[in-house]
Amino acid sequence: MSKKIMILPGDGIGPEIVEQAVAVLKVADEKFGLNLEFTEGLIGGASIDAHGEPLTDAELKNAGECDAVLLGAVGGPKWDTLDRAIRPEKGLLKIRSGLGLYANLRPAILYPQLAEASSLKPEVVSGLDILIVRELTGGIYFGEPRGIKTLENGEKQGYNTYVYKESEIERIARTAFEAAQKRGGKLCSVDKANVLDVTVLWREVLDRLAPEYPDVELSHMYVDNAAMQLVRAPKQFDVMVTGNMFGDILSDAAAMLTGSIGMLPSASMNESGFGLYEPCHGSAPDIAGQGVANPLATILSAAMMLRYSLDMGEAAAAIEAAVSKVLDQGLRTADIYTEGSKKVSTAEMGAAVVAAF
Amino acid sequence: MSKKIMILPGDGIGPEIVEQAVAVLKVADEKFGLNLEFTEGLIGGASIDAHGEPLTDAELKNAGECDAVLLGAVGGPKWDTLDRAIRPEKGLLKIRSGLGLYANLRPAILYPQLAEASSLKPEVVSGLDILIVRELTGGIYFGEPRGIKTLENGEKQGYNTYVYKESEIERIARTAFEAAQKRGGKLCSVDKANVLDVTVLWREVLDRLAPEYPDVELSHMYVDNAAMQLVRAPKQFDVMVTGNMFGDILSDAAAMLTGSIGMLPSASMNESGFGLYEPCHGSAPDIAGQGVANPLATILSAAMMLRYSLDMGEAAAAIEAAVSKVLDQGLRTADIYTEGSKKVSTAEMGAAVVAAF
Ligand SMILES: CC(C)[C@H](C(=O)O)[C@@H](O)C(=O)O
Ligand SMILES: CC(C)[C@H](C(=O)O)[C@@H](O)C(=O)O
Repeated sequence: MSKKIMILPGDGIGPEIVEQAVAVLKVADEKFGLNLEFTEGLIGGASIDAHGEPLTDAELKNAGECDAVLLGAVGGPKWDTLDRAIRPEKGLLKIRSGLGLYANLRPAILYPQLAEASSLKPEVVSGLDILIVRELTGGIYFGEPRGIKTLENGEKQGYNTYVYKESEIERIARTAFEAAQKRGGKLCSVDKANVLDVTVLWREVLDRLAPEYPDVELSHMYVDNAAMQLVRAPKQFDVMVTGNMFGDILSDAAAMLTGSIGMLPSASMNESGFGLYEPCHGSAPDIAGQGVANPLATILSAAMMLRYSLDMGEAAAAIEAAVSKVLDQGLRTADIYTEGSKKVSTAEMGAAVVAAF
Repeated sequence: MSKKIMILPGDGIGPEIVEQAVAVLKVADEKFGLNLEFTEGLIGGASIDAHGEPLTDAELKNAGECDAVLLGAVGGPKWDTLDRAIRPEKGLLKIRSGLGLYANLRPAILYPQLAEASSLKPEVVSGLDILIVRELTGGIYFGEPRGIKTLENGEKQGYNTYVYKESEIERIARTAFEAAQKRGGKLCSVDKANVLDVTVLWREVLDRLAPEYPDVELSHMYVDNAAMQLVRAPKQFDVMVTGNMFGDILSDAAAMLTGSIGMLPSASMNESGFGLYEPCHGSAPDIAGQGVANPLATILSAAMMLRYSLDMGEAAAAIEAAVSKVLDQGLRTADIYTEGSKKVSTAEMGAAVVAAF
């Protein structure tokens, strides 16, 4: 039985990097007999241009009927002046929410070959390997009521609602506890329970579940302190779990600790293991179409997809090994280039991974 | 006419560090004829122990009748199991809100003498000098409705409201524009306007005011990117302005870039220039009472108080010069100690600043 993969290249560098990831998936398919089938769709600015909206209901349905989704990136200056309701980002929020992809896994790993790229001292980050588990379909991103209204005195007021119910907290907490069990056995839950009621409930639920995972050491940290600790001593963390907004901020900070955000994949999954896979970085419109973008985060996202959604762990490991090999060979796209290494284009990097198989 | 200063030592290391700051203020008073008058009050755990609440209305009124407030820090494990409504932190939130201290100024400065303390590479942080302007009496910290309720199906739901009206945004924006005028002329406003309606209004107001400050270059950045850029290349920033919650997170991350949070003061001011001054760090209960805490952030907070609330810029500069001098002398409390320097106690550090006058 074949596995159907929905490819959503999106905008900016999205199409270039996704092209390389698909090439790598195809060679993995040949080699391991994965029986993959590809179908392509539109999201973000590309969909706005074609259909006037960043993700059509039909495309959302198509994606949901596949076995997994591989996404490039969305957004760019071309669509920045559009009405907010139809901006490219809304397509991303719609697919996350529409497919119930509540569990966002964002690893921040320092590749030893790229240790120099970090802005932190080597002793602070060498060997860094954190997994941030971010709730992705709730919290203040989707809470109602929301909007901008005019008060009686004529001035405007903007408002959003930060809301979580126990069941939403529980399912993402379980994802995080289980991930910690498979890793270093440490889970740090991040909240602001000294100020925000909603995160008081968050902390309660984590504490309630903890006894079910006796092999995981649970700790709690306020979000401001977590931001500090990521800068001061990031290696103290194994798995971190937090809500949508704090997760957005902390996962980007953590990714940047590695200095090579062009290397970092992510997974967004629902209850049944169905997932959307995408690089952590954005659409980088400034370098789009130049063939210089780093395709490795997308290639590694494809590997995550094989492992987590398609139960093809062997092929996933082979892709990851191939990526490691090209780094060992000294090949670098511009974003991770340092003197003495060999600067390559997007296509050359993709081809090198294929060749390293 | 004398100037009345309310001293709120608070908890943990608060009393020790405030004691040194008061000693420094007294020698400044003598030297510059400032005519300062001191009165002491209770906040945080100290107030809970005495009155059963973290800040009494009477004490709030006392503070408001002074010319400025100098605060140590609040909180500690002793009060962690109390009902949330009467925790030490609530005293801090109550005084901020009760005195209308909406403008929180948090400088992140790397002292050249302490450059080694940073976890970042020297070239990334040397000369770092950022000012974060954080809105302190609104946003999700104070927004209503808030709470935890039980849904029809029996599960609990927690919620908070992130809300700003135009006038609240405008006044903090003006604080930030004016600060930028006096500094490097660059203001970066941080929001999440691609997701949160309330920050769409935030961005609108900043853009509307910008033409009134033609000498300030205004830019906008999403909060996730701001967290990344602080790690990647913090020296790109001059002044940053943002709401209460994002400001809490980003100011702590920025402070930690310097590696010496024990050095960083902060000011929280209202419309008329009245202010509360406190170190950026917390009450550090683990080292309280040992005489090893760093009093310099509090001493520098006292200097900020003289400059911003009491119009005593000369005395403020003298305190700052004295602090720089003791650093040049190689004196270091434990938190900033490195080999080859001279480790001193809280009291010795305070005495050295007094002597350096
Ligand atoms: C583009 C934006 C809506 C999105 C988010 O905030 O979730 C992005 O920053 C991310 O982290 O995937
Ligand atoms: C103690 C806490 C309520 C406070 C805040 O979140 O504002 C602190 O973190 C700060 O930044 O001053």
